[in-house]
Amino acid sequence: MSDLRPIQKFRHRHLLGIEGLSAEDILILLDRAEGAVEVSRQIEKKRTTLRGRTLINLFFESSTRTQSSFELAGKRLGADVMNMSVQTSSVKKGETLIDTAATLNAMRPDIIVVRHAQAGAAHLLARKVDCSVVNAGDGAHEHPTQALLDALTIRRNKGRIEGLTVAICGDILHSRVARSNIILLSTLGARVRVVGPSTLMPAGIERMGVESFRDMKSGLAGADIVMMLRLQRERMNGGFVPSSREYFRFFGLDAEKLGYARKDALVMHPGPMNRGVEIDSNIADGPRSLIREQVEMGVAVRMAVLAALAEHLPNE
Amino acid sequence: MSDLRPIQKFRHRHLLGIEGLSAEDILILLDRAEGAVEVSRQIEKKRTTLRGRTLINLFFESSTRTQSSFELAGKRLGADVMNMSVQTSSVKKGETLIDTAATLNAMRPDIIVVRHAQAGAAHLLARKVDCSVVNAGDGAHEHPTQALLDALTIRRNKGRIEGLTVAICGDILHSRVARSNIILLSTLGARVRVVGPSTLMPAGIERMGVESFRDMKSGLAGADIVMMLRLQRERMNGGFVPSSREYFRFFGLDAEKLGYARKDALVMHPGPMNRGVEIDSNIADGPRSLIREQVEMGVAVRMAVLAALAEHLPNE
Amino acid sequence: MSDLRPIQKFRHRHLLGIEGLSAEDILILLDRAEGAVEVSRQIEKKRTTLRGRTLINLFFESSTRTQSSFELAGKRLGADVMNMSVQTSSVKKGETLIDTAATLNAMRPDIIVVRHAQAGAAHLLARKVDCSVVNAGDGAHEHPTQALLDALTIRRNKGRIEGLTVAICGDILHSRVARSNIILLSTLGARVRVVGPSTLMPAGIERMGVESFRDMKSGLAGADIVMMLRLQRERMNGGFVPSSREYFRFFGLDAEKLGYARKDALVMHPGPMNRGVEIDSNIADGPRSLIREQVEMGVAVRMAVLAALAEHLPNE
Repeated sequence: MSDLRPIQKFRHRHLLGIEGLSAEDILILLDRAEGAVEVSRQIEKKRTTLRGRTLINLFFESSTRTQSSFELAGKRLGADVMNMSVQTSSVKKGETLIDTAATLNAMRPDIIVVRHAQAGAAHLLARKVDCSVVNAGDGAHEHPTQALLDALTIRRNKGRIEGLTVAICGDILHSRVARSNIILLSTLGARVRVVGPSTLMPAGIERMGVESFRDMKSGLAGADIVMMLRLQRERMNGGFVPSSREYFRFFGLDAEKLGYARKDALVMHPGPMNRGVEIDSNIADGPRSLIREQVEMGVAVRMAVLAALAEHLPNE
Repeated sequence: MSDLRPIQKFRHRHLLGIEGLSAEDILILLDRAEGAVEVSRQIEKKRTTLRGRTLINLFFESSTRTQSSFELAGKRLGADVMNMSVQTSSVKKGETLIDTAATLNAMRPDIIVVRHAQAGAAHLLARKVDCSVVNAGDGAHEHPTQALLDALTIRRNKGRIEGLTVAICGDILHSRVARSNIILLSTLGARVRVVGPSTLMPAGIERMGVESFRDMKSGLAGADIVMMLRLQRERMNGGFVPSSREYFRFFGLDAEKLGYARKDALVMHPGPMNRGVEIDSNIADGPRSLIREQVEMGVAVRMAVLAALAEHLPNE
Repeated sequence: MSDLRPIQKFRHRHLLGIEGLSAEDILILLDRAEGAVEVSRQIEKKRTTLRGRTLINLFFESSTRTQSSFELAGKRLGADVMNMSVQTSSVKKGETLIDTAATLNAMRPDIIVVRHAQAGAAHLLARKVDCSVVNAGDGAHEHPTQALLDALTIRRNKGRIEGLTVAICGDILHSRVARSNIILLSTLGARVRVVGPSTLMPAGIERMGVESFRDMKSGLAGADIVMMLRLQRERMNGGFVPSSREYFRFFGLDAEKLGYARKDALVMHPGPMNRGVEIDSNIADGPRSLIREQVEMGVAVRMAVLAALAEHLPNE
């Protein structure tokens, strides 16, 4: 279990976003996740760190990938894991979240992992319950464990984050992944750029300290990391929806566009991918792709986060 | 584990309803549940009472709350828990239940928890399988663990059940919760009243030994406990369906109506609540509400029931 | 745990089908399953054989029975089990399978159990992942654990398989169960016949070494085992769909037709049954039916398969 013992204690009781974390906070989690990587690579992947603790996966939006990742992370640490997929279509959403939270809280969980379509849902939940809360995505706001796993993946492949140029490309407007990554990578000293069509670029994005580009050629010039985003058509209610063919032509990552970046640039995508829309399959499955490693790092980062938060639970 | 060791052994192999239980049977379960409350309040909530046993949650009607409660209860006692949500819309229901039961029985579970839309489903299942069966709600018939958790909540807050006046209010007609509570609370010596519109009052309810009222003012006068029920519109097929506004005006619990009861009267609701229909949010979330504590007692009572039934399994 | 220690080591890393297994391979699994039967009949059904291993149940077609059976088998062996039910209606199926496989693989499972509507899906998956793969049904191709559990059931009731006459009856065309059983039973020296209407009989079935009959009277004459199949209407897209009444008259197993077989012939069905279509309820629930025992053997065979494959995982 020594591989999961923290170098330093994480200061926070919840993980609601990357915003508000110091570089030290982030590094504590990344260092701890390095140990968790080794756990999942062993035959005997079971630890007792969270034995007797209850983890609830409360997903108001379905997500095979993130929910599975948290489920495995919790089980490998020995927690009792309960999945709850809640459909909110027929009910007033705010009410459901609060009543559900109060009900679950009364069942005495230790950690609730929550995904919800509304920005701020995880913060609201954290104010209503006694246990730790992990934000697994709230609307277009934050997705902190995704940013942590992306940072871990970059650090393991580039040896550092400070001083790297990271180009985040595509549907910035609807992306909580972009938002969390911008904050995290900037905090650790990377130069972050965002690249995408103006229709998918939030107004005033430059105030987050990033450079903003409207074309891949200039946006990718000199980049060490090219991070593609999923085109989130399901969030484009009534707004501009680009055609897949048009989008791929201008913003889809293929060999030609990847050629604009540094020769040793590496490629990332949070998944699930729309192949042939955001990214060409040859690039996604090619030697410069870190996409599969991101998934592996996802389990490790979630183990690290769950273990770090568990230290805040009151002792018997 | 001493906290889960029974004071006295429960005499029954199944828990199909409150009907047929003696006061002593009920008290054995309530006393045992007191120990289980403490287990869930500890950091290390895992016990080995049901280690190596298989618990199947067989839900023909969906129920986030009750299913979660049994799932956590089983997991905290160390059982292997398997959830099965079965949709019955397209099949003849009786047949499915029996074939499903026979199939599951052959997988050698120790306890099956069953919820089904038909009254008598749990009894039928118990005749077809070799393991213990717990009724988690069968049509408008019984919901024994709900009545047990309500009794535990009352006893912890009032110090006793005998001699209390309990007013059960609202949609009595469709409520298995009302039925199980009437039997249990009467058996333990409470005076039970039912209050509701005549359209939602079963004919001959007085034969269950309760007083029946058609208005909240007279029904709540002198009550120690005001137990609101959920308006079960989904069961009012073709019958009279009151409007929410009208219903709240006459039978929804607000500060004014609660004023008819004793000054120290406490408020309960089995959940999920229709806020503004059966109950005003200020009352539901107020200092006299036991609603959240009911949820906590639900996990404890289910742990007690599962542990008690497990003692009936043949020894190796 | 001695009951799960293998007499001989299974040679294969995956279980993708019965095709390619030798008689010795099959007997190793059947012998091992005998020990697993005893585990599930004990009060303490938990073993540590797969402790710390991750089992993923990846079901692209829903299946209450098979998924439950694998889930219980995995849990009783101490594995962390994660269920994933994937709906494929809206996506290109091949792509989903491969991307899902790659994602899951990155989470470092030890065994993936897969069911998919396309023949060959399990083989494809096995080429894309690092872990062991068990085929839980791929289109009309194979369902190897069903054939193994059927063989185990026959051997326990008849004392042998070699030399028995087994009549597989009904919808041979769409049945992966028939295909896997034909290969397995032939390999172990049984005489296998297929019986069904010509519209539900694959062309050239005789090349699999079976005798083929078009009527129950001649097909069942002298049979030791009458194995009925489910009529798979959901797979008869645009083809000939027999009426239930007509089908039962000619091919449904009732007392009269069972009379054509040997006096001590036993009856099997993989479930779920269409009562009154393939089989009369009196026969299904009668003294010569092995249908419930098949379900029990299902858990045992899956425990044996999971334990056997786990020995192929690299040691720490």
